[in-house]
Amino acid sequence: MRDPLSNKIKKIEPSGIRKFFDIVSEMKDAISLGVGEPDFDTPWHIREEGIYSLEHGRTFYTSNAGLKELRSEITKYLERRFGLRYDPLHEVLITVGGSEAIDGAIRAMIDPGDEVIVPQPCFVSYEPCVVLAGGVPVVIELKEEDEFKLTKQQLLDAITEKTKILVMPFPNNPTGAVMTKEDLQDIVDVVLEKDLYVISDEIYSELTYCGNHVSIASFPGMLERTIVINGFSKSYAMTGWRLGYACGPRMILEQMLKIHQFAIMCAPTTSQYAAVEALRNGDDDVEKMREAYNQRRNYLMRSFKEMGMQCFEPFGAFYAFPSIKEFGMTSEEFADKLLHEEKVAVVPGTAFGASGEGFLRISYAYSIEDLKEALARLQAFLDNHRRK
Amino acid sequence: MRDPLSNKIKKIEPSGIRKFFDIVSEMKDAISLGVGEPDFDTPWHIREEGIYSLEHGRTFYTSNAGLKELRSEITKYLERRFGLRYDPLHEVLITVGGSEAIDGAIRAMIDPGDEVIVPQPCFVSYEPCVVLAGGVPVVIELKEEDEFKLTKQQLLDAITEKTKILVMPFPNNPTGAVMTKEDLQDIVDVVLEKDLYVISDEIYSELTYCGNHVSIASFPGMLERTIVINGFSKSYAMTGWRLGYACGPRMILEQMLKIHQFAIMCAPTTSQYAAVEALRNGDDDVEKMREAYNQRRNYLMRSFKEMGMQCFEPFGAFYAFPSIKEFGMTSEEFADKLLHEEKVAVVPGTAFGASGEGFLRISYAYSIEDLKEALARLQAFLDNHRRK
Repeated sequence: MRDPLSNKIKKIEPSGIRKFFDIVSEMKDAISLGVGEPDFDTPWHIREEGIYSLEHGRTFYTSNAGLKELRSEITKYLERRFGLRYDPLHEVLITVGGSEAIDGAIRAMIDPGDEVIVPQPCFVSYEPCVVLAGGVPVVIELKEEDEFKLTKQQLLDAITEKTKILVMPFPNNPTGAVMTKEDLQDIVDVVLEKDLYVISDEIYSELTYCGNHVSIASFPGMLERTIVINGFSKSYAMTGWRLGYACGPRMILEQMLKIHQFAIMCAPTTSQYAAVEALRNGDDDVEKMREAYNQRRNYLMRSFKEMGMQCFEPFGAFYAFPSIKEFGMTSEEFADKLLHEEKVAVVPGTAFGASGEGFLRISYAYSIEDLKEALARLQAFLDNHRRK
Repeated sequence: MRDPLSNKIKKIEPSGIRKFFDIVSEMKDAISLGVGEPDFDTPWHIREEGIYSLEHGRTFYTSNAGLKELRSEITKYLERRFGLRYDPLHEVLITVGGSEAIDGAIRAMIDPGDEVIVPQPCFVSYEPCVVLAGGVPVVIELKEEDEFKLTKQQLLDAITEKTKILVMPFPNNPTGAVMTKEDLQDIVDVVLEKDLYVISDEIYSELTYCGNHVSIASFPGMLERTIVINGFSKSYAMTGWRLGYACGPRMILEQMLKIHQFAIMCAPTTSQYAAVEALRNGDDDVEKMREAYNQRRNYLMRSFKEMGMQCFEPFGAFYAFPSIKEFGMTSEEFADKLLHEEKVAVVPGTAFGASGEGFLRISYAYSIEDLKEALARLQAFLDNHRRK
C-alpha cells in the first residue's frame, strides 16, 4: 500500500500542550496549571439563552456567515470597546472559535511560498496553519528584555520581498505580554510602509490588567489591511461552545466565507444564540472574571517573588511566564520532573516556539486554593533542586 | 495596496445553493424546496440532554478528538449498523459536521498535484476542498441512464498515475442515488487493484428506502484504505449542532487529529453530550423520520408522474432529481423563472457539477402541505411553459 499522507502534514508536530494533559488526566492527585481555559462555568444567563434556544427548537443551520443579530451585536461591541467600525453584513464572519478564523484567514490569503511573520512565543496554531496553506512561517523570537513585545527593528529584520502577513498575537499567550498604543505605532509604521497585511489575534482583548486593550486595526490605514480575530471562549468562559469571529475588509471576508461555507457550513446554532445574550448583557460577568484573574495574577507574582523565581510581569491574558534558567534544565525537563516529582502540570515554554526555552507557562485560570497548593508543591520542588 | 487574496481561493466559486436562498429569504410567500436540511426539530430527548449538560456547567473544551464516551458509542453504532469495526481511541475523530471531516481528510492526504476523483453531481464541498489543498479534482460525470451510479468503466477511465483518492458520495446528494453491495464490488476491485484511498461520505446512510446502506469500508481490504465520513445532521435532524465524525486507519486519523487540533480545537461540547444520547436512544426517531421522508418521496414520485415530469427514482437521502430537458431551458434558467414566476425555490442541478445540467434538485425534507402547495405551483409553471 502506498503512503496515504501528504508531505506537508508529516512535517507538522502535534501540539506540545496536550501531551502533558494526557498524562495528568491519568495521574491521581495531580494539579494542573496548564490548560488555557477559564475555570469558570459560562455565566448562567448565557447558558439559559442556549437552553431557551434548544427548548424552542432552534436546531437548524444559520446562514453561513452566522446569525445577523449576532453579527450586528459584534459590530456594536467592537465599536464601543475598541473603536472599530465594521459592516455587519459583509465584514463579519462567525466561526468555530478563534482557531477556525485564524486558519481561514491564512487559507484565504496565502499562496505557496508567501511568508508569514510569526512572533514567538505564541499560540500554537499559526505556524502549522501557514505550513498547511503552503506558506512559509518566518519566526521572530521575542525577548524577555523587550517584555516580550515585538520591536520595530525585529520586524524590519524579518521582512523580505515574500512577506505578506504579520501575525500579531497580543495580549499574548503564553507570555501575558501586551502592546500599548505607542508600541503598536512603531509596528503600524512598518506595516504601512512595507504594504503588509495583519492577522491580529485579539482573543484575550478583555483580559488586560493595566489599561484597555488597543487594537492594531484602530490605527489610520489599518482597518483595510487587518483581519481581527476574536471570540467568546476567554472573555465569557465559553470555550466548549466553540464560537469566535473574524472581522476585516469585505474583499477578504468574502473569500473566508467561501472556505467556511465549504469546510464548516456554519458555527453551532445554540452557541450563536447564547453569544447574542453574552454581548447584550455580559459586561458585568467579564468585569467580575477579569477582577478574579487579576487577584490571582497578583497572588502569583507575589509568590514568585517570595520564592525567588524570576518572572516578567504579565499585563494580559491569564498566564505567567517565569524563567527557570537558573536550574540548568530545559523547559521540557523541568516540566517533566515537576509533574513526576510533585504532580504539578505546567507547560514548557518551548511548546510555544523555540524562544520559549528557559520558561514555563503557568495559567492562573485556576482557583486561589488550587494555585496555593500548586505553589506549595512548586516551592518544594525548587528547594529540592536548588539544594542539589 | 497589493492584492490580499491567494490565487487558489479566487479560482473557487461560491456555492450555487445559497444564492437562491438569499433571494427566497427576502421574498414574501415564497416556498423553498431547496435547503438540504431535515424539517424536523431535533428530537426532544436529544435536546434535553444538551440542556442538561448546559445546566450542569459542561461548558469546557473536550479532548481534541472528542468525548471518549461519544467515540465509543460511535464505534458501537457503526458495528451494529454497517459491520464496521474501529478502535474508539485511535480511529475516530469527532468533527464540526461532516464538512470539517471531508476537508480534514483531504488536507491530511493530498499533496500539490495529487488527483482526487469526484463523481458528480455531488455535494458541493469536495471539489473546493481539493483545490484548496493544492490537489487536482478529476470529475466523473454520472449518468441518468446508469441511475447516477459510478460504474467500473468510468472509474477506470478517470484513473491516472497521479490518482490518490476516490470520493464516494453515496447515498447521493443531489440525485438520491444509492449503490448496492453488487455495485460497490465493481468499484472495490478497481480501488484495490489501483491502490487508491477512498473518502466515503455516508452522511445519508440512515436514509435509504430500498434495503440498508452498505459501506464501502465493509469490503475485505477496504477498512485500511477508507475514511468514512458520517454525522448527526441528517439522520437525527441535528444540522445546527454541527457534529460529525471521521473513522479510518489510525495512521491517517492521527494526522487529521493534528489539523483538527490546530484549526478547530474540538467539536462543540453541548452537541457532543447530546449526540451520545442520540446514539443510545435515538433509533426510533431515525426510523420515524425515515418513514416520513419515504411517504413524501412516494408522494413526490406519484405527483411527478401525474405531471408528466420525468424523474429517476431516488432510493436514498431526501432529494429528487427530475429532468427538465423537455423545456429547452438551462437548469439555472428554469430555477430562476420558477422562483420569480411561481415563487418556488429549487436548486439547479448545475450547482452540483456540470453533469447536473438539465436537472433540478428538489428536497422532500418538507411537510406534505408545503410539498402540495409547491407542486401545485410547479404544475402551473409547467402548464404555462408547455403551452408556449
